[in-house]
Amino acid sequence: MAEKKKDRNLSIDPAALEVLAKTEGGNIETAYQRYLNMQPQCQYGNTGICCTICIQGPCRITKKASKGICGAAPYTIVARNLLRHVLGGTSCHSDHGLHITMVMKEIVDGHGGDYSITDSAKLKRVADRLGIPIEGRTDQEILKDVINLAMEEFSRLDKDKYSVWLEKTVVPERVEKAMDCNIMPNSIHKTVTESMAQTHMGMDADPVNLVFQSLKTALCDYIGMHIATDLSDILFGTPTPVVSEANMGVLGEKTVNIALHGHNPILSEMVVRAAREMQDEAKAAGAEGIKCMGICCTGNEVLMRQGVPVLTNFLSQELAIMTGAVDAMVVDVQCIMPGVQTVAECFHTKIITTIPNVKIPSSYYVDFDETRALEKAREIVSIAIEAFKERDPSKVSIPQVKNKVVAGFSLEALTEVLAAVNPDNPIKVITDAVDSGELAGICLFAGCNNLKVTHDENHTVIARELAKNNVLLVATGCAAGSFAKLGLLNSDAVEKYAGEGLKAFLNRLNEANKDKLQEKMPLIFHMGSCVDNTRAYDLVTALAKQWQMDTPKVPFAASAPEAMSEKAISIGSWVVTLGMPVHVGVIPPIPGSALIDGIALQIAQDVYGGYFMWEEDPMEASKKLLAALQERVWKLKVHRMAKERYETEAISKTW
Amino acid sequence: MAEKKKDRNLSIDPAALEVLAKTEGGNIETAYQRYLNMQPQCQYGNTGICCTICIQGPCRITKKASKGICGAAPYTIVARNLLRHVLGGTSCHSDHGLHITMVMKEIVDGHGGDYSITDSAKLKRVADRLGIPIEGRTDQEILKDVINLAMEEFSRLDKDKYSVWLEKTVVPERVEKAMDCNIMPNSIHKTVTESMAQTHMGMDADPVNLVFQSLKTALCDYIGMHIATDLSDILFGTPTPVVSEANMGVLGEKTVNIALHGHNPILSEMVVRAAREMQDEAKAAGAEGIKCMGICCTGNEVLMRQGVPVLTNFLSQELAIMTGAVDAMVVDVQCIMPGVQTVAECFHTKIITTIPNVKIPSSYYVDFDETRALEKAREIVSIAIEAFKERDPSKVSIPQVKNKVVAGFSLEALTEVLAAVNPDNPIKVITDAVDSGELAGICLFAGCNNLKVTHDENHTVIARELAKNNVLLVATGCAAGSFAKLGLLNSDAVEKYAGEGLKAFLNRLNEANKDKLQEKMPLIFHMGSCVDNTRAYDLVTALAKQWQMDTPKVPFAASAPEAMSEKAISIGSWVVTLGMPVHVGVIPPIPGSALIDGIALQIAQDVYGGYFMWEEDPMEASKKLLAALQERVWKLKVHRMAKERYETEAISKTW
Repeated sequence: MAEKKKDRNLSIDPAALEVLAKTEGGNIETAYQRYLNMQPQCQYGNTGICCTICIQGPCRITKKASKGICGAAPYTIVARNLLRHVLGGTSCHSDHGLHITMVMKEIVDGHGGDYSITDSAKLKRVADRLGIPIEGRTDQEILKDVINLAMEEFSRLDKDKYSVWLEKTVVPERVEKAMDCNIMPNSIHKTVTESMAQTHMGMDADPVNLVFQSLKTALCDYIGMHIATDLSDILFGTPTPVVSEANMGVLGEKTVNIALHGHNPILSEMVVRAAREMQDEAKAAGAEGIKCMGICCTGNEVLMRQGVPVLTNFLSQELAIMTGAVDAMVVDVQCIMPGVQTVAECFHTKIITTIPNVKIPSSYYVDFDETRALEKAREIVSIAIEAFKERDPSKVSIPQVKNKVVAGFSLEALTEVLAAVNPDNPIKVITDAVDSGELAGICLFAGCNNLKVTHDENHTVIARELAKNNVLLVATGCAAGSFAKLGLLNSDAVEKYAGEGLKAFLNRLNEANKDKLQEKMPLIFHMGSCVDNTRAYDLVTALAKQWQMDTPKVPFAASAPEAMSEKAISIGSWVVTLGMPVHVGVIPPIPGSALIDGIALQIAQDVYGGYFMWEEDPMEASKKLLAALQERVWKLKVHRMAKERYETEAISKTW
Repeated sequence: MAEKKKDRNLSIDPAALEVLAKTEGGNIETAYQRYLNMQPQCQYGNTGICCTICIQGPCRITKKASKGICGAAPYTIVARNLLRHVLGGTSCHSDHGLHITMVMKEIVDGHGGDYSITDSAKLKRVADRLGIPIEGRTDQEILKDVINLAMEEFSRLDKDKYSVWLEKTVVPERVEKAMDCNIMPNSIHKTVTESMAQTHMGMDADPVNLVFQSLKTALCDYIGMHIATDLSDILFGTPTPVVSEANMGVLGEKTVNIALHGHNPILSEMVVRAAREMQDEAKAAGAEGIKCMGICCTGNEVLMRQGVPVLTNFLSQELAIMTGAVDAMVVDVQCIMPGVQTVAECFHTKIITTIPNVKIPSSYYVDFDETRALEKAREIVSIAIEAFKERDPSKVSIPQVKNKVVAGFSLEALTEVLAAVNPDNPIKVITDAVDSGELAGICLFAGCNNLKVTHDENHTVIARELAKNNVLLVATGCAAGSFAKLGLLNSDAVEKYAGEGLKAFLNRLNEANKDKLQEKMPLIFHMGSCVDNTRAYDLVTALAKQWQMDTPKVPFAASAPEAMSEKAISIGSWVVTLGMPVHVGVIPPIPGSALIDGIALQIAQDVYGGYFMWEEDPMEASKKLLAALQERVWKLKVHRMAKERYETEAISKTW
């Protein structure tokens, strides 16, 4: 198996392959080599049947040892491990959301420093949806209520009060479902702690109970993410369509190149601002200027709002440094490989960590103090300028690969594009296209990269297959990063890959928007960073409302073709809970229990309407996603025909 | 290695051995057999260098793969796993504390149902220590403030407000130390979520940072535990000396036998009350009455306050059922082996689960609703009475092993015992005895059982060695359970095992208390359940205040000779942070990183004064504990001599 994996391509990204070729036989170790060194991987851990929760263990399920020492069955072990994974993801998004909330609490208290409300209209939309009065009130008054409610979403202890953010952003049927299943969270922090306790030795042994708690925790992930996105928009502006470019060719030969990596816009927005102000300092250091560029979701955040180009996505983060042209890699939170520091030490690149609980030994640490945000951002840019002076031209080798990117499709931006076709009811442009058969449904691409499959391949193969079959595509996170790098986020890709229906649909949007937008529609609509998956789910909610039905009937699917992180597991879990089929292109550590596997793949559908599909082969995955969408489209059609017949023929209501 | 383990004794508890002998070659599987089946255990997991945090893994550190796929070094992997373990323990104690807090919130709101304030004096002591006014206020008014503060301890979000419960219960130097090291928690829930996020893929790679966060999280464990103990005392009464008995011989041949197992007194207190009221129903069913008895820490809770006998401790929980004489095992939270249900199915025993997030498939579930507590408790007792009717006498075989137990030594109770010697300054009775050389220090025994060592052996061997060397002994949790079962919690044990100094000290207490107490002092003072380890630490604080010094100078040590659960890891971590040497008799999954191991064993002492000692051999462990105490006693003596010399000879202050 290891041999087979050694033979296969490591990436389909030409820039990544070019950099990797440089190190063939060389001595710079990257994740691609470490993955091969790690083969064969432990099959107990891989399938979820290794338990290290108490120190009588580790317990691994074998024929001889069919239960853990405490008597835990495989289903208990798998379910506990699953819940801990969901907890990891949920906690990250919670911390991200809380970080932004507390920065905005400073604005409320009059100490916002360099931060202020950028998008007053979004503030009002968010407040209004949450049931907070907006008429005749100042932004500051409204923000105070929004932030107080956000803080409650994290800290509420009462067992009879439930998350308002969840209740107010999904269709009522989903809230009822969550209440019926006893998985409606009171608050994020309480649920996280209760879930962690539930997985302790000698706590819950009931796999179904543990799975329900995983879903409750995953709903907290949704809440934390939604808060993060809503508040980021208020703080930095709701994204609107923007043109940029992507892949390592964006590196400037003669510019100070700053890679922004991580997930949180709180820091990166300030660095982008500081970099724009400090072009002269860079010129004084012999550079032609300063260029910021993004990696992972910090990259998506600044692409969406500032048009900052995409340098690369998760898996190739080390490779970017190996171009020799990155002067500083500024990181905040999540998905930062510790390996970047080791690679950086072979070059002049400075790795700058910025968050107290995310450090890397030997990296340069700038304590990013939000009360002095711009000052700190300038300090970071200065380090990059200094590093530029140390750049060794003989080590610079920039792959000349880049693609045009049209991004910035927040739901609001997408709605405005649709409104050019139907101003009274923009979302109906999509539902009509599905009802007429022009579109075969909608699919969200999300998630990471994972070396268990070829870098970027699953993303692109599945997306192209679905486009060919007239599925409307939206994307976030490193999936969007993959599409950006490989040229799928522009209108050329529409010509190359879209089926006739999708092409007609996009052309209708182009036609209606031709006076407003400089660029034609891309093949895939980039909705933001992975924390912005709630934007995509808000689209589901809007579609469900338009069709006047619960979300499990909406012909929408999600795919995480190269899922890697616990966040992907938590996001996938709430997407399923909220009614969607979810394809995962890497098998998570679940099949060690046939019961838990069956719940994920099948039983979940009976309860929530959503379900998982594990499929590593991209062509098979495409078929499964299309089948899932076809089933829903077909049911929609039957439902519509029945309704029409009922209305025209006046059949008894009990029919 | 597996063979060696097979040869060794499984337990030194004669009752456990008798029951185990019954199953030799039989077909009832228990943890003892499952442990042997599990050999050899995975050495990657055992030493902490297996990472399953992202689904590119599992990554195991080998010569070929010296780092994880992401580049995580062994120290990062070990430290992240350690933090997740501390999180497991902290979350359990937090949930336990919050459960009691929210029950008492109902009392505050006038809906206490069957719950009310039992110990008004304790309420006032707790409030006063927290800085809540008590003069001229009703209990209800005081309780409201205490509970509001307790709720804040869980939910506080502000980054500039810190835990009051921690600040007010330890010496000021410990608070300063925590502030200096940036590990003073704002609140429990916020810290838990932030820590879980910190361990996510691509978050913290800095092992030192992760260790500090583990200690911050462990301090939250302390806070949750202290709240749980304080509020339990207010609700059910502060324990006072009580006489009972322990081990399987407490099972009645002709009584309805109800085993109370788990950790929380909220349920068990009500079951004990219901059982006392329902003796007639039991007689009508042909029994001689109802007998409640305890396992694990629920057992300790009802022993301490109600004198309920101890049935057995953690490891032998399944064996108790195999006597055929347990009619119902009522469980609440933590350390409940799923194996009990499988064993129970071979007998008439009903396993009754009671807490929504702690279920066992096939068990009988009674949803313990605190608003109808006594009614629910009666339902549980009724099930036990019904089960009694099904008992098969031919399957009953009760080991005739039991020992007298003198327990109930809350710090208040211990202080009262000391006050009989020195009414003005009770704690000085201990400090004087240490200063005079009569006592060699104080040692707390805590923690679980773990099959990696012989059941109960480490506990008893170390305790007897320390007693022989005149160490004053206190115990909690399954350590206390072990001592109870094996006859160390009574005055006979003093005769057998205490050194001359300890004997003299205890006799002085006996003499002073002879008119007040019916029983002589036990060899070891039972301070309560494992959540009550804060009682033992309050003793450290009292000693430090008497000696007028920070806690790292107090000749006090702790030992978890058979640590098993994540709670043991979190407790050990805060005990070290708060200045104590801590022996652990089972090596936790840390030695995979020499750095983290070194921090635990050595560097921790430089920063906090406390440190860990791993030692599986009980005689060696005794030597290490004695050496740790001797060092502190010696320093105390030097300090005292220097002080006297300074005072008498007026040596320069800079000396």
